[in-house]
Amino acid sequence: MSIIQCVPNFSEGRDESVVKEIVESINAVEGVKVLDYSLDADHNRSVVTLVGSKESILDGAFEGAKKASELIDMTKHSGEHPRMGATDVIPFIPIKDVTMEECVEIAQKLGAKISDELNIPVFLYENAASASHRKNLAKVRKGEYEGLEEKMKEDKWKADFGPDTPNKKSGATAVGARMPLIAFNVNLNTNDLSIAKKIAKNVRLGGGGLHSVKAMGVELKERDIVQVSMNMVNYKKTPLYRVTELIKAEAKRWGVSVIGTEVIGLVPQEALIDSLEYYMGIEDFEKNQILENRLYQD
Amino acid sequence: MSIIQCVPNFSEGRDESVVKEIVESINAVEGVKVLDYSLDADHNRSVVTLVGSKESILDGAFEGAKKASELIDMTKHSGEHPRMGATDVIPFIPIKDVTMEECVEIAQKLGAKISDELNIPVFLYENAASASHRKNLAKVRKGEYEGLEEKMKEDKWKADFGPDTPNKKSGATAVGARMPLIAFNVNLNTNDLSIAKKIAKNVRLGGGGLHSVKAMGVELKERDIVQVSMNMVNYKKTPLYRVTELIKAEAKRWGVSVIGTEVIGLVPQEALIDSLEYYMGIEDFEKNQILENRLYQD
Repeated sequence: MSIIQCVPNFSEGRDESVVKEIVESINAVEGVKVLDYSLDADHNRSVVTLVGSKESILDGAFEGAKKASELIDMTKHSGEHPRMGATDVIPFIPIKDVTMEECVEIAQKLGAKISDELNIPVFLYENAASASHRKNLAKVRKGEYEGLEEKMKEDKWKADFGPDTPNKKSGATAVGARMPLIAFNVNLNTNDLSIAKKIAKNVRLGGGGLHSVKAMGVELKERDIVQVSMNMVNYKKTPLYRVTELIKAEAKRWGVSVIGTEVIGLVPQEALIDSLEYYMGIEDFEKNQILENRLYQD
Repeated sequence: MSIIQCVPNFSEGRDESVVKEIVESINAVEGVKVLDYSLDADHNRSVVTLVGSKESILDGAFEGAKKASELIDMTKHSGEHPRMGATDVIPFIPIKDVTMEECVEIAQKLGAKISDELNIPVFLYENAASASHRKNLAKVRKGEYEGLEEKMKEDKWKADFGPDTPNKKSGATAVGARMPLIAFNVNLNTNDLSIAKKIAKNVRLGGGGLHSVKAMGVELKERDIVQVSMNMVNYKKTPLYRVTELIKAEAKRWGVSVIGTEVIGLVPQEALIDSLEYYMGIEDFEKNQILENRLYQD
């Protein structure tokens, strides 16, 4: 069975009853499951994580956006986090038996449906972007809800779908497709932050390092050590083992060692198994040899 | 959700329609799924792999045994593989969120049910055995169907459940609980079989090696190399990484190297992730951080 993850962000982070109603409307869609949701009062924003198949995920995301358009009024919204709509952003993320291209198609179809049925303009971003200047979400959202009407008058910021002006109550929504992001940290047996910072610089792309790695050095004061803290933005291109081994090699230059690693939050099974295949040199391994994967196949 | 694997062996390996009826009767049980089945004509024996939860797996196994008691007549059975019953053996195997003790309990309950409802004597074996001389399946089955009546007259071979004599049509059934078995091979960059044999001897328990490892040296003629071919009978006690690293160390003595490994057939996810945790030094990893595992939780 295919698995797509979807992480819509809604502009309500204070009234949990509103977020619960949105979550319930998503969970009511067959084949879709909300794994998690969280509210941030300062940001006045909530993040919902749902999963579903290629067939069901679009409906799950749409029901959430529809409910948010009913319950959230952007004319009354304030919060610290940049936002331009009641449903601010909807990324689709390929997890299992699905391609990025299929996620882009789903983003396009959802964009058309949101504009048709809810009369909300939709901007496509990241891998679904219709032009290179629209890939970066921060640029798409710049000016926020309050500046949207002016911004949309420019040719280069017309919506991909829907009306030429924002929906007064709901603003606009960014819909996109991207790879899963893995939060991955590597711990060093030193408390010298400058070493973690130097290694972080050397392993990220801009410092002459690896593609798809965002890295910085941070202190873990309670353990009196430092770590290279990373976001791995494309585990297929740059797997976990590669950055781990590169950090081990870089650490030698400073006379320090890697003493452990951390995977924070959710991670696709494939990202782990691929790295195990490297370390153990496993030949011709098929993911459906994993017993659990067979259990839930169609 | 808990997952228990069950691999009943039936004494029919030639008439596929019989095996299909058995498989269908198992699949009709809610919460149970047959992953695979195969027939061997020489052995005149079939192997069915099903999975289910703690709540459902007993019923799945029982329905298979019941159907086999209707369709298979042991008075007419012959084949190369040792056997004592129409349903010859039923092992329960803990895979996820279930203990060995719970699998033993299920084996006991199933034994009672098979004897009560089908009037077939049941012997408990392996981790479910009621005495140490009954642990080994080969010993329980020695004498086979034809010798069963005589054997069961001895005090030490009374059935754990059911009548004191075999069921004429169905014989007797062995029901047990055991760890999953992982078929795991390590390839060497030499065609010298004696080296693979020496390493196999050194890594298995009897040769001064590791617990829970059965190993032998074999030739891969088409690749002109040799391998250490293993059954890992308890991956929790002796994980895959440990035997891999030990073989690397042993291989050095003969001036050869490990060039790859193979995992054959099904493997529990946990056996792979545990080894990855070793290689990458992952701290405090929880299995429910794997996105796919969250998807199918209750």
